[in-house]
Amino acid sequence: MVQTEQITFYTHAYSVYSHRVHLALEEAKADYTLYTVNIWDKPAWYAAKVNPIGKVPAITYGGPKVSPDAPSDASVKLRESLVLLEFLADVFPDAGLLPADAVQRAQARLFMRDADAALYEGMKAYFFAREPAQKLLDALERVQRALPPAGFAAGAQWCIADMAAAPFLARIVFLLEHDLGVYPAGEGAKTLALVRGERFARLNRWFADVQAQPSFKATWDEAVQFSVWSKLPMFKRN
Amino acid sequence: MVQTEQITFYTHAYSVYSHRVHLALEEAKADYTLYTVNIWDKPAWYAAKVNPIGKVPAITYGGPKVSPDAPSDASVKLRESLVLLEFLADVFPDAGLLPADAVQRAQARLFMRDADAALYEGMKAYFFAREPAQKLLDALERVQRALPPAGFAAGAQWCIADMAAAPFLARIVFLLEHDLGVYPAGEGAKTLALVRGERFARLNRWFADVQAQPSFKATWDEAVQFSVWSKLPMFKRN
Ligand SMILES: N[C@@H](CCC(=O)N[C@@H](CS)C(=O)NCC(=O)O)C(=O)O
Ligand SMILES: N[C@@H](CCC(=O)N[C@@H](CS)C(=O)NCC(=O)O)C(=O)O
Repeated sequence: MVQTEQITFYTHAYSVYSHRVHLALEEAKADYTLYTVNIWDKPAWYAAKVNPIGKVPAITYGGPKVSPDAPSDASVKLRESLVLLEFLADVFPDAGLLPADAVQRAQARLFMRDADAALYEGMKAYFFAREPAQKLLDALERVQRALPPAGFAAGAQWCIADMAAAPFLARIVFLLEHDLGVYPAGEGAKTLALVRGERFARLNRWFADVQAQPSFKATWDEAVQFSVWSKLPMFKRN
Repeated sequence: MVQTEQITFYTHAYSVYSHRVHLALEEAKADYTLYTVNIWDKPAWYAAKVNPIGKVPAITYGGPKVSPDAPSDASVKLRESLVLLEFLADVFPDAGLLPADAVQRAQARLFMRDADAALYEGMKAYFFAREPAQKLLDALERVQRALPPAGFAAGAQWCIADMAAAPFLARIVFLLEHDLGVYPAGEGAKTLALVRGERFARLNRWFADVQAQPSFKATWDEAVQFSVWSKLPMFKRN
């Protein structure tokens, strides 16, 4: 990997979308500076100088090495997790972030689109909007159906398609394990049993393969996740 | 361009999404077979054998050359216009469908995402849902803001980002010119005057540059468009 430009990565442990990019940066063995943005009380310079829409993830690319909280005008500012995944695949062409074969690349991108929409809806419905667990299970079913019978989303190696979906799966399982979410107290364990059931055998095999990846391990910290999610006001149990 | 596999392109003149792919196929000087799917009365084999979700565009890639209405099991079936644009950029790496530079490629993809969402909403609101013209103008404003000060969406050459947006612009202008849509009869000309006004100077310059492209001319037929849109039941004027 010949990386000639500096990369600063703006992120937050809460953020599924940021986690995607973190996985790709680790997988590419990129040389980057990680900066955690307080997404609940964002510093003014963030929207002014990094991401005009104020969200994480974002990266600055190129320009001088500067402190992340004083971004240089000389760097390129990029946003949108799926765009950033493609960008990293372009910048690190030898890192295997995308398969080399055009058909497999198309399959990866199709999986990214389908899984992105399904998992966002499923997670929002069950954990944030108090809709029935069925909505979450339907979403997982859609993702499972988008997977090929064996291997990762688009071949034997994991790629940005898997990295786009994994952060959702990780948080869904984690939240259920800790009974976190707006659903009735105690329901997490029941839903988790369904998620871990025979119906989702293929999805769980895929997720186990994801969890075994060194860059997954390097970017997932249960203690940090617990401190973030258990403090969400809407998740508080009385 | 060395194309080793057959390509069959399933499309309909009505479809913005299909037009995108048509532009890229023409731009790449691909060798392909075009098949118009009657999207208002779809043949059963289409969902069964080409695109399980039944929409256009789709392509079959590889396998034997067969009649488009009897697709071979040996070809790969691909769908989703933005995925297909990336696929064609991969299959025809020398056609300039995407810039070579990683930052410009990211800018192209960001434009695609932003313009896709904005134009879909704006077009649906004004032409189909009888919402105020303001919604359409806001969408055009967003697209205009996403354009760089000069040139195309991501550089001096047009690329798949421009091809993703152009089919919307073409239909929006065309429909207004012909007073087609669910808005009150006679309003099209007024809205068109706003769209062509000073406020959208940059957008119109970009669209004029798009219209000058040979592959745009090869894929846009006003007579065909008129026959499609003027027959839409919901667009009929009493
Ligand atoms: N479509 C964006 C979504 C990014 C996003 O929604 N980020 C959230 C955290 S998960 C955020 O920054 N929220 C803070 C805010 O919107 O102010 C992407 O894929 O990057
Ligand atoms: N997200 C799809 C959208 C495709 C789409 O909506 N196609 C429409 C025509 S514009 C269609 O085939 N409609 C027929 C149907 O849904 O049955 C893409 O980008 O390719």
